[in-house]
Amino acid sequence: MTRPAGVAVLGATGSVGRNALDVIARFPARFRATALCAGRNAAALGRLARRFRPGIVCLSDEASASRLGPLPKGTRVVFGEEGMAQAACAPEARIVLAAASGVASIRPVIAAAGLGKRIALANKELLVMAGRFLTEAARAGGAEIIPVDSEHSAVFQAIEGHRREDISRIILTASGGPFRNLTVRQMREATVAEALGHPTWHMGAKITVDSATMMNKGLEIIEATWLFGLPADRIDVLVHPQSVVHSMVEYRDGCLIAQLGIPDMRIPIGYALAYPERLPLELPRLRPHRMDGWAFECPDKKRFPALALAYAAAARGGTAPAVMNAANEVAVHAFLDGRIRLTDIVKVPGALLAHWRPSPYPPDLEDVLRADREARAEAARMISRKRRPNLP
Amino acid sequence: MTRPAGVAVLGATGSVGRNALDVIARFPARFRATALCAGRNAAALGRLARRFRPGIVCLSDEASASRLGPLPKGTRVVFGEEGMAQAACAPEARIVLAAASGVASIRPVIAAAGLGKRIALANKELLVMAGRFLTEAARAGGAEIIPVDSEHSAVFQAIEGHRREDISRIILTASGGPFRNLTVRQMREATVAEALGHPTWHMGAKITVDSATMMNKGLEIIEATWLFGLPADRIDVLVHPQSVVHSMVEYRDGCLIAQLGIPDMRIPIGYALAYPERLPLELPRLRPHRMDGWAFECPDKKRFPALALAYAAAARGGTAPAVMNAANEVAVHAFLDGRIRLTDIVKVPGALLAHWRPSPYPPDLEDVLRADREARAEAARMISRKRRPNLP
Repeated sequence: MTRPAGVAVLGATGSVGRNALDVIARFPARFRATALCAGRNAAALGRLARRFRPGIVCLSDEASASRLGPLPKGTRVVFGEEGMAQAACAPEARIVLAAASGVASIRPVIAAAGLGKRIALANKELLVMAGRFLTEAARAGGAEIIPVDSEHSAVFQAIEGHRREDISRIILTASGGPFRNLTVRQMREATVAEALGHPTWHMGAKITVDSATMMNKGLEIIEATWLFGLPADRIDVLVHPQSVVHSMVEYRDGCLIAQLGIPDMRIPIGYALAYPERLPLELPRLRPHRMDGWAFECPDKKRFPALALAYAAAARGGTAPAVMNAANEVAVHAFLDGRIRLTDIVKVPGALLAHWRPSPYPPDLEDVLRADREARAEAARMISRKRRPNLP
Repeated sequence: MTRPAGVAVLGATGSVGRNALDVIARFPARFRATALCAGRNAAALGRLARRFRPGIVCLSDEASASRLGPLPKGTRVVFGEEGMAQAACAPEARIVLAAASGVASIRPVIAAAGLGKRIALANKELLVMAGRFLTEAARAGGAEIIPVDSEHSAVFQAIEGHRREDISRIILTASGGPFRNLTVRQMREATVAEALGHPTWHMGAKITVDSATMMNKGLEIIEATWLFGLPADRIDVLVHPQSVVHSMVEYRDGCLIAQLGIPDMRIPIGYALAYPERLPLELPRLRPHRMDGWAFECPDKKRFPALALAYAAAARGGTAPAVMNAANEVAVHAFLDGRIRLTDIVKVPGALLAHWRPSPYPPDLEDVLRADREARAEAARMISRKRRPNLP
C-alpha cells in the first residue's frame, strides 16, 4: 500500500475545488489534501480545513483570517502569493490542483511545475497569460500538466496512445450556452439571470457568462495551443448542445477519437489526479440510447464575435491573450453588476486589442502581468467613461 | 529510408483485400504486396499479380490456375492451405492481412503469428473458431493482432493509451442493417435484393446478410472477447444508424472513448498496416455539422435473435462458436440461393446448438475444425430435409 498522494488545492472553495475535495474524500487511501487555498472566503475555508485537516491553509490576505474559526492542530495559516507558493511547493504536495481564479496563482504554480509536481490545471488564466512560462517550467522540472477542463481533458484522453504528429486538428465542443438560438437583438436584452442559466454545466458566474458569450471557448482555444502544442488555426469549435461529446481529435487518416460522458467535473478532476489510472467514481453512466440524437453545428461567428477575437489574440501572441482575458473579465463583472449589456462584453477586449501596442521583444512574465493590470485599468476606465464601450 | 514492409494479402480479390491493395498502392514507399492469395477467382488474381508483382500468388486449388494468365517474372504460384502458409510465413512478409473467408487460412495465420508477424485481422472465423489458438500463437511469437473490422479497430484505438484494467465495457455499434425498422412479419418476406441493400457499408454478400440478421454483430461480440480479453457479458451492442461512431469503450470512471469517421474500410486497414502511425489517406473527412443527429438505440432482441445466440455460444465456449458460425454460413447461402427465408437463417445455428454436445475436454484446433465440418453437414441436411428448419 503506497501512501496517499498529497494534493495542494488552490481554489478550494470554488466549484472545481469543491468537486476535487469530493473526489479526494471518496478515495482517502489514494489522496490527501495537504493544503487548501482560497481567496477571501475564510469561513468556508475554515470548515473545509476542519474536515480535511490539511497542513496548510492559505487566504489571499490576513484581513479575513479571523473568520477561519478553529483549525485542526498542526494546520498552518499562510497568506497571499507567497503563502500559496509555500502550499504548492511543500514536499507533501505531489499534485497541485490549480483552480484558483485570478493571477495570484500563476507564480506559485510555475514554481511547483519547476519542482516536477503534477499540475492538474483548471485555471484558464494560467495558460492564457503564462502558457509559455508554465510549459517551460514543466518541461524543465519534468512535470506533467493534466487539464481539468472537460474539453481539454477530453482532448488529452483522445491523444493518449496516439502520435501527436498524426493530429490534423482538435475539435473543441461547446454547448452553445443559454443563448445558442437567440438573435443578436435578443442577446442584447439578455438579463444576468438568463445568462447564468447554463443548460448543461453548473459552474461559477464568471465562467457561465463567458459560456454565454462563447469567450470561454475562445480562452479554451488559447489554452489548447499551449497544452497540445498546436497553432490556433488547427483548433476548431463545434457547437454540440447535448454536451455529451466533450471534444474530439481528428487524425491525418481521417479517424476521430472522442471522449464522452455525463457532464460532471469530478470525472476530469479524477482523471487528472489519478492519471494514468481511472477512479471507480460510481457516478451515473452515460446512456446514449436514452438520449435525443447528438447534434453538431458550426458556431455563428456574427453572434459570437469572441471566437474571432480569441483566434486573433492567439495569432498575435505575446501579451495579446492576457490583454483580452483581463479586459473580458472586467467587462463580465460590469455585466454582472448591471452596468453593461451582454453583447457589450466582448467589445471591451475588442477595443483594447485594437489599440494595444505589442511589446517589441518577447514579453517575460513581468511584462504579461503588467499588461494584465494595465488592461484591467483601461477596461474599467472605458466602461465607467461611456457606460458603454466606444466601439462599433 | 527503411524498406517497404512486406504484406501477404490473404483474400486479395475480396472487398477487404481490394481495399488493402488500394492502400498499398497509395504508399509504395511504405508497403509492398509480397503475396496475393485468393480462392478460385484466378482471373482477378492474375490481374492483381500483374499490377502488384508479388513473389507468390496462391489459389485454393490447381484447377483454376490456367485462368491466371501471364504472371510477372519471378512470381511463384502455390495452392491450398499449404501454399497459403508459404505465402504468410515467407520472410518477406512482415504483415499478414488475414481477409480470406473460410477456414483454409486458420492454420497459415496461426503459423505466421507464431513467427511474430503482425496479423491485420479481417477474417472473423479466425477468432470465432480459433481465438484461443491464434491469441496463444501470437503471444508465444510476440505478434501483434490488429483488427481490421471497423468496430474492432475503433475499440482497439479507444483502448490505446488507456489501461485495460480500467475498462468497464465495450460498446460495439451496429448500423442495424436494412431491416432495422421492419416488423418480424416484414422481415419474413424480405428478399435477397433487400437484404443486400446495406445502408452505410459496401461489403460482400455473406457479411451483408449477416448484417441484416445482426449475426454479424454476434460474431463480432465473440471476436471482441478474444481481441480484448473480456467476457461477452461486458461487450454490449448499440444500434447507431448513422454508422459514424464505429464503437466505444466505457471506463470505470464513467468516461467513454469513441472512434469515429466516414465508413471507408481503407481507414481501419491503413491503421492496421501502419500502426502505430497513421497514413495521410486523403479521404473525405467526417463533417459532424453537416449531418443529422447521431442516434443510438438498444437492439431489439426479439427481431434479432442472433445476438442472444451469440452471447450463449460465447458463454459456452469450446466448439460452440464454431458450430454457430458454420451453421449460420450454410443457412446464409441457403437464403442467398432462395431456399430459406431471412428469418429462418438464425434458426439453423439455434437448432444445432440446442442439441450440440460439448466435448468433455477443452477442444484442440482439430476438434474445432471437425465440429465446423460436422455443423456444416448437419445444417445442410436440416435445410434440405425440411426446406425449413425444424425449430419454433
